[in-house]
Amino acid sequence: MNAPVSATNLLPEIVLREVPARLIDALKARFGQHCSTALVVREQHGRDESAYGTVPPPAAVVFAQNTADVADAVRLAAEHNVPVIPFGVGSSLEGHLLAVQGGISIDVSRMNKVLTVNPEDLTVTVQAGVTRKQLNEEIKSTGLFFPIDPGADASIGGMSATCASGTNAVRYGTMRENVLGLEVVTASGEVIRTGTRAKKSSAGYDLTRLMVGSEGTLGVITEITLKLYPLPEAISAATCTFPSIEAAVRSTIEIIQLGVPIARVELIDSNAVRMVNAYAKLNLREEPMLLMEFHGSPASVKEQSETVQEITHEHGGQDFEWASTPEERTRLWTARHNAYFAALQSKPGCRAMSTDTCVPISRLADCLLDSVAEADNSGLSYMIVGHVGDGNFHFCYLVDPNQPTDYETAERLNHALVGRALTMGGTCTGEHGVGLHKMDFLLTEAGSGAVEMMRSIKRALDPKNIMNPGKIFAL
Amino acid sequence: MNAPVSATNLLPEIVLREVPARLIDALKARFGQHCSTALVVREQHGRDESAYGTVPPPAAVVFAQNTADVADAVRLAAEHNVPVIPFGVGSSLEGHLLAVQGGISIDVSRMNKVLTVNPEDLTVTVQAGVTRKQLNEEIKSTGLFFPIDPGADASIGGMSATCASGTNAVRYGTMRENVLGLEVVTASGEVIRTGTRAKKSSAGYDLTRLMVGSEGTLGVITEITLKLYPLPEAISAATCTFPSIEAAVRSTIEIIQLGVPIARVELIDSNAVRMVNAYAKLNLREEPMLLMEFHGSPASVKEQSETVQEITHEHGGQDFEWASTPEERTRLWTARHNAYFAALQSKPGCRAMSTDTCVPISRLADCLLDSVAEADNSGLSYMIVGHVGDGNFHFCYLVDPNQPTDYETAERLNHALVGRALTMGGTCTGEHGVGLHKMDFLLTEAGSGAVEMMRSIKRALDPKNIMNPGKIFAL
Repeated sequence: MNAPVSATNLLPEIVLREVPARLIDALKARFGQHCSTALVVREQHGRDESAYGTVPPPAAVVFAQNTADVADAVRLAAEHNVPVIPFGVGSSLEGHLLAVQGGISIDVSRMNKVLTVNPEDLTVTVQAGVTRKQLNEEIKSTGLFFPIDPGADASIGGMSATCASGTNAVRYGTMRENVLGLEVVTASGEVIRTGTRAKKSSAGYDLTRLMVGSEGTLGVITEITLKLYPLPEAISAATCTFPSIEAAVRSTIEIIQLGVPIARVELIDSNAVRMVNAYAKLNLREEPMLLMEFHGSPASVKEQSETVQEITHEHGGQDFEWASTPEERTRLWTARHNAYFAALQSKPGCRAMSTDTCVPISRLADCLLDSVAEADNSGLSYMIVGHVGDGNFHFCYLVDPNQPTDYETAERLNHALVGRALTMGGTCTGEHGVGLHKMDFLLTEAGSGAVEMMRSIKRALDPKNIMNPGKIFAL
Repeated sequence: MNAPVSATNLLPEIVLREVPARLIDALKARFGQHCSTALVVREQHGRDESAYGTVPPPAAVVFAQNTADVADAVRLAAEHNVPVIPFGVGSSLEGHLLAVQGGISIDVSRMNKVLTVNPEDLTVTVQAGVTRKQLNEEIKSTGLFFPIDPGADASIGGMSATCASGTNAVRYGTMRENVLGLEVVTASGEVIRTGTRAKKSSAGYDLTRLMVGSEGTLGVITEITLKLYPLPEAISAATCTFPSIEAAVRSTIEIIQLGVPIARVELIDSNAVRMVNAYAKLNLREEPMLLMEFHGSPASVKEQSETVQEITHEHGGQDFEWASTPEERTRLWTARHNAYFAALQSKPGCRAMSTDTCVPISRLADCLLDSVAEADNSGLSYMIVGHVGDGNFHFCYLVDPNQPTDYETAERLNHALVGRALTMGGTCTGEHGVGLHKMDFLLTEAGSGAVEMMRSIKRALDPKNIMNPGKIFAL
């Protein structure tokens, strides 16, 4: 019999590097009250929304007020060969914030200024600690918006570092497509800029895209220039329930293949609907459901929604319901975004393990349905939410921290799911990143040659291996 | 007085590395008739469409039939520390193909198979030598198309390596947004794969985007997986002439800022119209002109074109003319694409030096108009074509190879133009790449820290500096 898998041994081996007292002294001298070694602060910075067990927290937290602070903190850490872990709001899901090799945390949440809005160019430059909701609130008067919406009110720095996306990506793309340029503090504490405000460029290596998704392992992102979009003239949201997940997914595939420029098309399975109903006191019909949103001119929204209604109807979709007022839409999307918390509440004391596969749209039904069958057979509680228009979906397995077999089952299901997605030409992570948990999957997905290329880049840009070490790949 | 600038000394210092006879012998043994050392073949592979003077051609040309050929050629070259320059169709504009450090050329034009079309996923995988026109011809029956159109019938490999874009980018993005994954032969001759067929991924460093735009300096691209798009239900093209460049550009800015999803919006100045008229025996009104194309449903195309007609009318646009049949559209875009050749023909014996700045859309009028005034004052013949919806435009200066002052003037104008674009938050190259000519500009644009980061990556991935050395930056 295998040894039981516990939350803790989902983690790689923890080998803490020394954080010399001289460094802490130097940080305190430089940052004064903006450097904390209080246990509660350190603990808050040593965890994220992942289901991992406890790791010793970072030795200190620097609350950076500006880029110079970040640069100085990195420089001091580099002098002492001490790891540095950037921290935004702590919403990452793959253990990115865990100090698996010790070190210090650099919290950029106070770097929360929207620096320059260029409405006429549809661009904005923000500090890394600005959150997506804050950004949209601050630019409201311009008639523009920033669409990327991973659910959590994440920091733009964190969203860049993990290449986040979420519900709107099917129309507006991911952070990869929406970051125009960055300011980055390198592993030596130097400040560089990547990209420009021009819409396109062929000027040398694409350092912007290299940093986006690098999970803090190549530098600390301090400023981000983003694309903005005109608020659509018309927005309509709709829900539609289906007799089966398959019917919902087949509808989605058809919508995408027809090229309907739908802004959101989210699947929630009947488990998730039930959990959301209980959590948010709603009365949604407890069947697989698509939540959709249409953006455009009134004529285009009408055209899109007519096409979609026709498609869903053909697949047995029922109760096509509209939410056209901002309030109704907010209620709908809040319910969707709270699915994660609804799931946690459905089984008090449990933790959620989220999968993140993404497959070519033609394989979505096969991948999803086989995985549903496996999950149903396992006896583990779960729910599914999915950005299905992109072929991306999340199983959220609910595990009891006191039941090692729960973790074992969840791991087994996830392995089978990822294996399936990879054979279908998909990826182990559509938007959460590799972090700690998907390092083996990355190796299978990308191959040892490509991962070795990543390692070479890491070694070249961070020779002391101090930038969020132990994430993405073992060095 | 300054020494005259000649075509040749636009080039960096040429220091040829030794190509040992043993390597040539080994290549001949391995590739037989597919390895040529004939002067005419070598010379054809040692130049591109740039205005540079002559450089000694590569010592041999390997005509790769498949990825294994490329890998073996690179491995043999690596053994002898000999540079390798990938060659597609030879249409690059910045000296990318010039063997400034000697070496061998690897011609991938015979790797011209469309490998896998996945119409239901809107993806296709091609070998690097497939050209964009060939691709669109071969997938015609699927109802899909590949929109990126840099004018020349370039190879997809070359387009990826330079991050090409062109007329359709305003709606469909550049190669950066349209390459999903790659097969690449690394500097050690290893074959790696980047990306997947999934629409999005956060799986490790974005090696795909690192390779796109790396101009052959990090590896040889051998296969490319691309996004495809459903052929629009309706397509309409239109031309409109304007009393001034300013009026044309102000119209464009307004179209973009309003969020009209226009598929193409190209400026050609009155010089270019005159040249095109002469070349293609057309009777276009010799005034600044916008060439536009609208894609979408019939209703959306109608809506877009009504909005655009209103905007152009307000700016004094005249003679709004439609081209709705495929034949009319082809004639129009062929005229646009032939502007380069029309310019060359307008001044027999001349060479064309093309600029490639791209600025935030709000600065487009300022940048363009100041540069027009300077060019008019210089006395040099020129024309302008521009993907103005993206803020990208090309001055095409016509220089007489026997008149060193022509080069000097063109260089002076280009320096002023790039300086202007950079102070406006723009880039020195929107789509042609850095190559040989923009290395200094890149340093100004990106800063020494960012360029040093690029160098570190280059050293890490190509320690012998054999992959198209001497391009993008000096090592």
